[in-house]
Amino acid sequence: MNDEMTRIVLGIEYDGTAYAGWQWQAGKRTLQAELQTALSKIADQPITVHCAGRTDAGVHALEQVVHFDCAVQRDLKAWLMGGNSQLPDDIRITWVKPAIADFHARYSVIARFYRYVILNRPMKSALLRTQATWCYQPLDADKMHAAAQHLIGEHDFSSFRAQGCQSHSPNRFMHFIDVYRQDERVIIDICANAFLHHMVRNIAGVLMSIGMGKATVDWTAQLLEIKDRSQAAATAPPFGLHLGGVYYPEHYGIARHTVFAKLPDDAKRFD
Amino acid sequence: MNDEMTRIVLGIEYDGTAYAGWQWQAGKRTLQAELQTALSKIADQPITVHCAGRTDAGVHALEQVVHFDCAVQRDLKAWLMGGNSQLPDDIRITWVKPAIADFHARYSVIARFYRYVILNRPMKSALLRTQATWCYQPLDADKMHAAAQHLIGEHDFSSFRAQGCQSHSPNRFMHFIDVYRQDERVIIDICANAFLHHMVRNIAGVLMSIGMGKATVDWTAQLLEIKDRSQAAATAPPFGLHLGGVYYPEHYGIARHTVFAKLPDDAKRFD
Repeated sequence: MNDEMTRIVLGIEYDGTAYAGWQWQAGKRTLQAELQTALSKIADQPITVHCAGRTDAGVHALEQVVHFDCAVQRDLKAWLMGGNSQLPDDIRITWVKPAIADFHARYSVIARFYRYVILNRPMKSALLRTQATWCYQPLDADKMHAAAQHLIGEHDFSSFRAQGCQSHSPNRFMHFIDVYRQDERVIIDICANAFLHHMVRNIAGVLMSIGMGKATVDWTAQLLEIKDRSQAAATAPPFGLHLGGVYYPEHYGIARHTVFAKLPDDAKRFD
Repeated sequence: MNDEMTRIVLGIEYDGTAYAGWQWQAGKRTLQAELQTALSKIADQPITVHCAGRTDAGVHALEQVVHFDCAVQRDLKAWLMGGNSQLPDDIRITWVKPAIADFHARYSVIARFYRYVILNRPMKSALLRTQATWCYQPLDADKMHAAAQHLIGEHDFSSFRAQGCQSHSPNRFMHFIDVYRQDERVIIDICANAFLHHMVRNIAGVLMSIGMGKATVDWTAQLLEIKDRSQAAATAPPFGLHLGGVYYPEHYGIARHTVFAKLPDDAKRFD
């Protein structure tokens, strides 16, 4: 970071339905492109943003964290209010802060929390059609929860990794997975240091198979063992997936989602 | 009802965002028009539907109840699955039943339940932008609940009635109103025998003013007394409003929303 530069951190909520994912792509409507266009207007110069977790097409964020560097000074209110006035209403900046020292939205992350929402009832929903995955076969959320506990800790997640995943290592540290029912919905809250490409959706697919009784509760443990993506269930759809929040070291002063109270005190970056 | 006719009852869920309301209007996209077009294709003849509660533009339904008469016989599954295959995905038929005797979706109703959802936090939401009304000023849900209790029972609701309302009487019987907070949302669950035009949104507007501290808890009682719409608060936006469910006499065999457990056993039609 140049001495004259100011680094700004933003919290972003979005409905990913209309977007080809987070990452900038030539000729496609992406969240990064929309945000950069809006912030560049406020800065009156090109802005490049860096995010905590690059979400796929159709995936939402309750809270994505983003930073950018800028040579011009603006009030925090100008980024917040001005940025929102330039954004479509399916993307909202929810807070803005100046970055502390060496903060980096991606490299400073200790843990990421995703929420996968399944609507589990006989008929599809009009109101939740883009924000939940529909499953008409009854799911046993307790079995799904039990199966998920095999994934806790450090593992080679090759069986849950997309073919095109570019990560050097297939290892990740899973902090917790909670699967529970809320009326007609089954919710998967999942928190790891980081995730491989499609890892949450592949875990959701496996847990749904177990919840329907198509596989036993031990299947998650077996899949960790055999390290073979082709043996696992189909990738669950993107619509049910929400980036729920991002956990940074205390001294960066980024407010935390209450779910992170479940993390151990000594949770550290890992990779 | 003609002897050769079959009367069918449907449960309908919809996202009202893209519609000019329930009621058929020449040249406009309405929920009634979409549903009639879809069912007419299944029947291979024109179908006219009757609903429990005609919702305004932008208003949603968790459960609208509808009936229609048809001279042709179809499996219930054909109406359900076939109907849904002809409908856009922001309208879903959730169940289908043959009607018992003289059932009428509108005239048999004992009570209607609406839910008004307010997102109460400093910044707007991307994910709830069409299914909640945003209020950035902190709301005191307990005060709103206390104020709402003045409206219980039979009253002249002229102060909460839209100018163009075509109802003969301004009297309605209010069964219950519950106002409560759920994280960042304040929810108003409201149940009456029937509602005047804009009545729920006018009540929501008044309760929001009270919740912000702009008016006292007694204002609801004063408004009932003065019977003057021009003295009340602005009509709250349609986006937060959902028709939650409809309550019919037991013998019609229509499944009930759990909220109706709060109704007295002797609740009757009234008007």
